[in-house]
Amino acid sequence: MNNGRIFNFSAGPAILPDSVLETAAAEMMNYKGTGMSVMEMSHRGKTYDAIFEDTLAKLRRVMAVPDTHAILLLQGGATMQFAMTAMNLLPIKGKADYAVTGSFSKKAYEVACSLDMGACRVACTSPGLSPDFSVQTSIPAQGELDLDPGASFFHYCMNNTIFGTAWNYIPDTGDVPLVCDMSSCILSAPLDVSKFGLIYAGAQKNMGPAGLTVVIVRKDLAGHAPKNTPNMLDYAVMIKNNSMLNTPPTYSVYLLGLVLDWIENMGGLAAMEKHNVGKAALLYNFLDQSKRFLCKADKGSRSIMNVVFSTGDEEQDKAFLKLAESKNLSTLKAHKETGGIRASIYNAMPAEGVKALAECMKEFEDNA
Amino acid sequence: MNNGRIFNFSAGPAILPDSVLETAAAEMMNYKGTGMSVMEMSHRGKTYDAIFEDTLAKLRRVMAVPDTHAILLLQGGATMQFAMTAMNLLPIKGKADYAVTGSFSKKAYEVACSLDMGACRVACTSPGLSPDFSVQTSIPAQGELDLDPGASFFHYCMNNTIFGTAWNYIPDTGDVPLVCDMSSCILSAPLDVSKFGLIYAGAQKNMGPAGLTVVIVRKDLAGHAPKNTPNMLDYAVMIKNNSMLNTPPTYSVYLLGLVLDWIENMGGLAAMEKHNVGKAALLYNFLDQSKRFLCKADKGSRSIMNVVFSTGDEEQDKAFLKLAESKNLSTLKAHKETGGIRASIYNAMPAEGVKALAECMKEFEDNA
Repeated sequence: MNNGRIFNFSAGPAILPDSVLETAAAEMMNYKGTGMSVMEMSHRGKTYDAIFEDTLAKLRRVMAVPDTHAILLLQGGATMQFAMTAMNLLPIKGKADYAVTGSFSKKAYEVACSLDMGACRVACTSPGLSPDFSVQTSIPAQGELDLDPGASFFHYCMNNTIFGTAWNYIPDTGDVPLVCDMSSCILSAPLDVSKFGLIYAGAQKNMGPAGLTVVIVRKDLAGHAPKNTPNMLDYAVMIKNNSMLNTPPTYSVYLLGLVLDWIENMGGLAAMEKHNVGKAALLYNFLDQSKRFLCKADKGSRSIMNVVFSTGDEEQDKAFLKLAESKNLSTLKAHKETGGIRASIYNAMPAEGVKALAECMKEFEDNA
Repeated sequence: MNNGRIFNFSAGPAILPDSVLETAAAEMMNYKGTGMSVMEMSHRGKTYDAIFEDTLAKLRRVMAVPDTHAILLLQGGATMQFAMTAMNLLPIKGKADYAVTGSFSKKAYEVACSLDMGACRVACTSPGLSPDFSVQTSIPAQGELDLDPGASFFHYCMNNTIFGTAWNYIPDTGDVPLVCDMSSCILSAPLDVSKFGLIYAGAQKNMGPAGLTVVIVRKDLAGHAPKNTPNMLDYAVMIKNNSMLNTPPTYSVYLLGLVLDWIENMGGLAAMEKHNVGKAALLYNFLDQSKRFLCKADKGSRSIMNVVFSTGDEEQDKAFLKLAESKNLSTLKAHKETGGIRASIYNAMPAEGVKALAECMKEFEDNA
């Protein structure tokens, strides 16, 4: 890149499109002649109201969210949603199923259990899972799900950021609503939102800066929280107040709007999927023929957002990371739970960044 | 102002120092040669970690926060703290006192009651309060507080943004910890933090963009939340994780750091108080001799952050707002609970903005 920017493979907060940052910088002191920064605007004022409503409308359009579902712009990240989903939905039938296929889905399950609001049950884990959940290389197939038809919901995490695995199918749970953490894959490909009871995602991977959480909830699933639920954590209250019970994270919402403009200019989610599948294939194709690198995720369970691999040797991994860093390929160190190397290649990572990484891997392999 | 910026009197989100926004814009694409925007950085990485720790250290230094108190950087705004303070501190003795002197302190009381976690009691209201709390013009004196020495805490809101009143003394509650919402006055003047059990504030008035909440809590007051408290809402969990149980609102924290730099450059909180008292005096002195404008807050209970006034006539108020807008004095319309005019003159409002407002008031009065 010629503007001093590096290729940032961070798992999140993560790379944002250059054009989004350029617009944000240009509008920082004076948004469209208002004489104010967006972050200085009253959230109840006309100018900001238009930004907020436009962002909601764009998200509804880009994701084709049906009218049956409300879109909420909240705070607290996925971890707050681990509790909020359970607090709001567990009371419906008093019990819920959890798929534990990675670090965050395990945390979601643990938080839900800690609330003492109903019976939470592990409906499936990843095959080959070790007792401490440290090994997760694949996603269970439909036939491997132990489903309770009386559950309030079935919770899963669509893309496991740490392990580089992803659900490449939407589970069929009959009438049991799907509750899905899409933090690290939202907006990466077209999605049939109508199949989900509730979708949530922290913004800091494919949507914008950390501190904004998107929730898409089927309206009939709100309104079941106990009366003593804090108002900030009640979906029904937030729907009624259009996410403005109090001041929302106004600047982060504006940035989400800029990211959605960028996605629409790129051709929407179908184009985004093609872009992402192509980038991921570059890395997986190389890994599958590599004599030096090993891919952690099984074929069929591979994420197009996070590609996790290793030489199998800690020192060699370090040497590779050093070589990559020298080429401005940055933040490739994997999470400590897996070790090794992780390339997070979210929407905003350009194909040239992934090509440069693949070339670096080849160079490292050739010079072994 | 010569850069197209207006004087923004918004009650929050509110005006930020030009220099802060200029730095943010300049560093947007590439923070100090890292090749990344701050909002793209992993919150666990070395560069961001330094920003986070520096911001905490600056806040501790600027506010002279003693070691007995932890500083937390959270999400959810004051409204989340209405619940969180009660969830964490009510269990200590099972009951708490609330001063209801404005719209937000009333909401804090109502949220605490709704949780069903202990007995919440109104310890005082504003003299002259109407049954629906719609009239609040002064703050009760120490002798008017009906204090329960067995309360877990005494909650009050130091500055009432909507009514333009402020507690101009720190209540003496003996051994009962003070829990104080300082959303609209934090960093406006020096403060003896040691007198408080817990201080909280949304960032969007004197600290930065909406979506960041600062909590300063005496360490011995954490750790009393029931076991089924969501981990995100347990102060002890947040202290243990240095506010990074999950991804914090990274960019907003960076902006808080820039605001703190600006405050230190201005001379710290003592200089800030002088600056703010001077600005407020300009308006109150004019109001006290005005034949056309009436100040809503009683002397002795006046806020130096929010000056609320009116002509007493809705049409005349509108005419004034129109005149002000024509002079780039913006967002002066008061909250619907009071009606009239409100000038929010937070730290970042320059004296020239307040002078221009006072001149506009004089012009309006002279041309009546």
